[in-house]
Amino acid sequence: MAAHQQPDRPHATESAAAPTGLWLVGARGSVATTAVVGLLALRAGLVDPIGCVTERPPLTDIDLPAWDQLVIGGHDIVDTPPAKRAEQLAGAGVLPPALLGAVSDGLAEVEAQLRPGYHPASHAGAQRAAADRLAADITEFRARHGLRRVVVVNVASTEPPLPRLPEHADLAALEAALADPARTVLPASAVAAYAALRAGCPYVNFTPSTGIALPALASLAEQVGLPYAGSDGKTGETLLRSVLAPMFAERALRVRSWAGTNLLGGGDGATLADPGHASSKLESKARGLAALLGSDVRAPLHIDNVPDLGEVKTAWDHVSFEGFLGARMSLQLTWTGYDSALAAPLVLDLARLVAAAHAAGQRGPLGALAFFFKDPLGSTEHRFAEQVRALAAWACELGGRR
Amino acid sequence: MAAHQQPDRPHATESAAAPTGLWLVGARGSVATTAVVGLLALRAGLVDPIGCVTERPPLTDIDLPAWDQLVIGGHDIVDTPPAKRAEQLAGAGVLPPALLGAVSDGLAEVEAQLRPGYHPASHAGAQRAAADRLAADITEFRARHGLRRVVVVNVASTEPPLPRLPEHADLAALEAALADPARTVLPASAVAAYAALRAGCPYVNFTPSTGIALPALASLAEQVGLPYAGSDGKTGETLLRSVLAPMFAERALRVRSWAGTNLLGGGDGATLADPGHASSKLESKARGLAALLGSDVRAPLHIDNVPDLGEVKTAWDHVSFEGFLGARMSLQLTWTGYDSALAAPLVLDLARLVAAAHAAGQRGPLGALAFFFKDPLGSTEHRFAEQVRALAAWACELGGRR
Amino acid sequence: MAAHQQPDRPHATESAAAPTGLWLVGARGSVATTAVVGLLALRAGLVDPIGCVTERPPLTDIDLPAWDQLVIGGHDIVDTPPAKRAEQLAGAGVLPPALLGAVSDGLAEVEAQLRPGYHPASHAGAQRAAADRLAADITEFRARHGLRRVVVVNVASTEPPLPRLPEHADLAALEAALADPARTVLPASAVAAYAALRAGCPYVNFTPSTGIALPALASLAEQVGLPYAGSDGKTGETLLRSVLAPMFAERALRVRSWAGTNLLGGGDGATLADPGHASSKLESKARGLAALLGSDVRAPLHIDNVPDLGEVKTAWDHVSFEGFLGARMSLQLTWTGYDSALAAPLVLDLARLVAAAHAAGQRGPLGALAFFFKDPLGSTEHRFAEQVRALAAWACELGGRR
Amino acid sequence: MAAHQQPDRPHATESAAAPTGLWLVGARGSVATTAVVGLLALRAGLVDPIGCVTERPPLTDIDLPAWDQLVIGGHDIVDTPPAKRAEQLAGAGVLPPALLGAVSDGLAEVEAQLRPGYHPASHAGAQRAAADRLAADITEFRARHGLRRVVVVNVASTEPPLPRLPEHADLAALEAALADPARTVLPASAVAAYAALRAGCPYVNFTPSTGIALPALASLAEQVGLPYAGSDGKTGETLLRSVLAPMFAERALRVRSWAGTNLLGGGDGATLADPGHASSKLESKARGLAALLGSDVRAPLHIDNVPDLGEVKTAWDHVSFEGFLGARMSLQLTWTGYDSALAAPLVLDLARLVAAAHAAGQRGPLGALAFFFKDPLGSTEHRFAEQVRALAAWACELGGRR
Repeated sequence: MAAHQQPDRPHATESAAAPTGLWLVGARGSVATTAVVGLLALRAGLVDPIGCVTERPPLTDIDLPAWDQLVIGGHDIVDTPPAKRAEQLAGAGVLPPALLGAVSDGLAEVEAQLRPGYHPASHAGAQRAAADRLAADITEFRARHGLRRVVVVNVASTEPPLPRLPEHADLAALEAALADPARTVLPASAVAAYAALRAGCPYVNFTPSTGIALPALASLAEQVGLPYAGSDGKTGETLLRSVLAPMFAERALRVRSWAGTNLLGGGDGATLADPGHASSKLESKARGLAALLGSDVRAPLHIDNVPDLGEVKTAWDHVSFEGFLGARMSLQLTWTGYDSALAAPLVLDLARLVAAAHAAGQRGPLGALAFFFKDPLGSTEHRFAEQVRALAAWACELGGRR
Repeated sequence: MAAHQQPDRPHATESAAAPTGLWLVGARGSVATTAVVGLLALRAGLVDPIGCVTERPPLTDIDLPAWDQLVIGGHDIVDTPPAKRAEQLAGAGVLPPALLGAVSDGLAEVEAQLRPGYHPASHAGAQRAAADRLAADITEFRARHGLRRVVVVNVASTEPPLPRLPEHADLAALEAALADPARTVLPASAVAAYAALRAGCPYVNFTPSTGIALPALASLAEQVGLPYAGSDGKTGETLLRSVLAPMFAERALRVRSWAGTNLLGGGDGATLADPGHASSKLESKARGLAALLGSDVRAPLHIDNVPDLGEVKTAWDHVSFEGFLGARMSLQLTWTGYDSALAAPLVLDLARLVAAAHAAGQRGPLGALAFFFKDPLGSTEHRFAEQVRALAAWACELGGRR
Repeated sequence: MAAHQQPDRPHATESAAAPTGLWLVGARGSVATTAVVGLLALRAGLVDPIGCVTERPPLTDIDLPAWDQLVIGGHDIVDTPPAKRAEQLAGAGVLPPALLGAVSDGLAEVEAQLRPGYHPASHAGAQRAAADRLAADITEFRARHGLRRVVVVNVASTEPPLPRLPEHADLAALEAALADPARTVLPASAVAAYAALRAGCPYVNFTPSTGIALPALASLAEQVGLPYAGSDGKTGETLLRSVLAPMFAERALRVRSWAGTNLLGGGDGATLADPGHASSKLESKARGLAALLGSDVRAPLHIDNVPDLGEVKTAWDHVSFEGFLGARMSLQLTWTGYDSALAAPLVLDLARLVAAAHAAGQRGPLGALAFFFKDPLGSTEHRFAEQVRALAAWACELGGRR
Repeated sequence: MAAHQQPDRPHATESAAAPTGLWLVGARGSVATTAVVGLLALRAGLVDPIGCVTERPPLTDIDLPAWDQLVIGGHDIVDTPPAKRAEQLAGAGVLPPALLGAVSDGLAEVEAQLRPGYHPASHAGAQRAAADRLAADITEFRARHGLRRVVVVNVASTEPPLPRLPEHADLAALEAALADPARTVLPASAVAAYAALRAGCPYVNFTPSTGIALPALASLAEQVGLPYAGSDGKTGETLLRSVLAPMFAERALRVRSWAGTNLLGGGDGATLADPGHASSKLESKARGLAALLGSDVRAPLHIDNVPDLGEVKTAWDHVSFEGFLGARMSLQLTWTGYDSALAAPLVLDLARLVAAAHAAGQRGPLGALAFFFKDPLGSTEHRFAEQVRALAAWACELGGRR
């Protein structure tokens, strides 16, 4: 389902090339810090925009906020200074050490924009109050910097899967439950999404956590007329799968099994070492593969926390397939990458593109952005080539409307 | 460049679902024998059409010769009986041993249709005489079986690259040289292509040998109004490359090097152990990668003859790429497949599709079939997704025109 | 601890080159069938003894039963005929199809020697009675064929790990419990080991199941003066680890993590798909790696059931290590093998070697056979090179004593 | 052949724990600089001696020069300052950037000890004069620092293979030719080895270049009573091969082919991009594999220069082997390492061990050091486990003799 357009809204023909906030939930983490350092370096002309798809045609046809029109703010529940996190990332090979000096002033400015995040385990009181406080932080940030709009992007640690409650499907019931200090009805990621909508901000979920993916929150987004996108940024193994699985299909080759192992360290590794947290990620990945290959393909998948790998993520995939007359063949893949380096430019791209969607008056799930996600909202398309095409079509439409 | 259509030709609206010959140059080799055994098994309903893209939408929209409308004939310079080759292939894991009994009668019938091939080293006299003899074999085969048309497909061993001569660019000069018993102006694959055209047959080059890829032969094809396709079937490593290289581009990731090693045994391994023969293959592969990635990407490539691997081909690719802020990452691939099992269904597909193009009055290089080739004639498109799209568009057009 | 010798026993200087029984527990499975087919083919001179270490110096110095002195019998709880299992293995690439005809008579003879196995789930009554029946089967087999001795080898499916009971540590208490029809005090593998000892037979556990590895059974073996060996044949990934881990140590390189994934189908895959059964295997593998590398090396390990792989087992290992000045490096391994083809010759080797140990009057755990096992009984040595040396020393001693 | 001992020489019972020079030929290259930075860091207690086998038992039983007794000097034909090379290596991930500050004074001191190297292409005159100049540099260094001995180690770029001349086999003829200004009878590496011997220094060739491996130079070493070792440090792919090939042999598995591809950048990659230089390396590697597996194993091997990989070396090996009843299986390896980080600690180890051999009065080729080399001088043993044993035996003898 594509996003709904509202050609009658006054800002429908507005350009997104305006001062724009990028509010990062999980602003002190590896992905956020890499995005921020990269933005500062791009703004200063110190690096090429490698990995930024908004710098390639046809996305360059859209009026987007320029690098120096993006202002960073955010929430986090830890208090590691961005400069310190950047140092760690440089030591781990994600950031070039030589860049740190050049961005230190910028990081200090960003640090000043960060506010304490919310986590149910450490905050008492009604969740509505917490959400109001989060929304106020964003509203105040928007006003302080005179921003035309703020895009909220979730890059916080993965949460465990959510036990469903009836309130998740009904906005009024949800609002009532949020006001009850005795209840914890939403996970942190959904509280943040609720706060974003209440602050009038488009929202992006770059993680497999719940975020906005509840019927009640979808209703709210519809009600307030905001666009959103997600879930779970597609950066490595799943990207490969969304490219390769269609190849087998187009060649009429029969995939029999697709086994995968992911080794990762860093904070992500530690989070995903907890089977509860890992299962969100595994479910998100498995849904994609089943959509691509059908559900009868055996696809065991593991995520292992291997702390010594640091920020490096290594994924091994073994594909067994059958060809003409039943001939048995295989493909193995080993992907070795820095997840933060793969994710960060997409976070910047999404901030720009969702800003443009908002400027164009789009609302609801932006299915045309399935290109970016493992588990796309507003789309059932997992084939990479089709996602490329849908994104290009959307860009042309958006670019041409001005 | 797409094939030219001739809507005014009387057979332009003709259906290709008619008795059709598939004349295999190299008819006693592994690819040919696998195709023939597979065709017999498909005809008998013993196997699923795995690997046959003509059995998938949208190609199923086209009126194609049915499996039992395809009649096999061919040339070869060796005299291994197809039944014996099939046994070898069963021992090597390419064919299921249980199938051999069921196809033995069919193989004997095919054997009766095979004629001695041509090789400059072992045939004296003018090449024109050789070509006339080859053409007569095909014409006689067509008449004997009452075929509506015959598609000639080259699946013979790879030849060394051809030293260019002025005659290759000029049809009249070529014809004169062919008539001179003292000259050897064309390699065997081009003599066979010439013979096919002279016999009024559409032609497909599934190998990296010269075949029809000379300006003089293109002129001849134009003159006699025949379609053709090639070159070099895309079955394994190059298929992967044509899928993965665009992924890096679409994600704005910068590929820095793409190294490849191919290990193969079998007859193909022995042929390609000769550096002269291998260089045709290497050139064909390298052109594709340069088209996909640009010529500044370091891409060392090796083909090693490893006889003990038999019919198995193992390819290892190592891709080094750069992401955001210069982060260095890599992808490794190991592809283990049976080249004959990958090639054979495509040979059957091509026979059917080129028959349909001929029935529709198309002529010249069929660029829409780039999907099948490492080094496509009539197209500069190497990106797999774009090739899929072009093929689908062509199929829809062809399917709808009836 | 090496096996204890009893130079005073009358048969201490006896040659093992005598009619010898090989009694297979799990005689209708893949490993057993591969071993039997192989033995028949070796006896007929149809194949080279590839994979048989008893055919290499210095083991050739020992007087061993010749191939045609080995007589096969066994127990199993399923009733698949060996000839049918052999056919399946030929279809799966483990056995050469051409061999089946030549061994069909031999397989029929073996079939006649097989007796129903024991499993607690399907047999009521005291376990002692079951053991007596098993022992009688073996005794009767020995008498029927006039065998000098019978070596019992467990190649049955892996059992789940055993909850420890006090009776396992005390032979008298165990005997009492075995006589109680209301109790199930031993798993099937240990009942079979008990029966072997009671029948006066040396015993080998080629699986990670309990077998003889209980203090009470060790006491019994000591009491009756029999040698034994185990556990868990070292055929693939663990073999590589026992070779490579010492390399890192000898080069003073610091292994930081060693992750492994095993993909396997076949019966073994199905058994190990059950987490209970898999954990025996995983524990056995993990103990070996910890012994080699120390327990502070992160070593996640998975076994996945991937039915379409059939008899093929694919293992991927990723080793991360640190070199001079902390440089981070890695080694990846992909092992693709047929477990049955790797195991079967070792089963034959073990039957011959344990027969020789018995002939020489050795008793207790044969630590010198650690070379063959993931989790060696009677030895704490996991380094392959040291195991090679220990085996050679043992062989020289045994060879020279005659 | 083990080194000859001369128990009657006065210094035979001398301890090597004395001020010792390490004279590096190629002192400004990556390996040398990594060794020097590491030595400085070890001396300062800043790092653990990872990768240094002389810090492990039983080598710790030998009296060796302590880290702070090693004084560095050397020759080189380029003039890159060590501090600048160290910076490059830190940027490339070989050295930890944080270490650079701590070793900068030390690097400046080393820089002061370096002298211009010799290369036939850029130096006119008799080679004897060049050798005399090189020897004088070393002698002067030894005197200046009051060193008990100086070990000369070649870590310069690989030379092309040497066309053999009659003079190479005859010391007198060689001396005559060296004195002739019109002749270039030795490559640079052999001139340096000659100079080392003339300066009374033990010599180590860590490269596949000629060095001391000429009969005439072996005679000279014998005459002057000096020990030496080589050739070609075994750091990566060959190390793995020397560990794994014996595994297949010990398990009676039949290796059928062993294909290898090496991708490397850096200076080494550029040097080896020249087929002439690469062939020295390839020959050295191939000799080792043939010694391990026999010469009938197909073993294609490639070295590709892939500049973007920088100091990282990636090697892929594909081993095809045959098991019981002809079952076909495979092992693949991917090794990703920093050659300089693997080589540097071995260079320090060799300096210490060869100093100890010299102190003990050993002379001739030190076959017991085969552990360190692809193409060992004084030994035909390529199996890693046997090399470990030989080294340990040598160490025990040397350690016990004092």
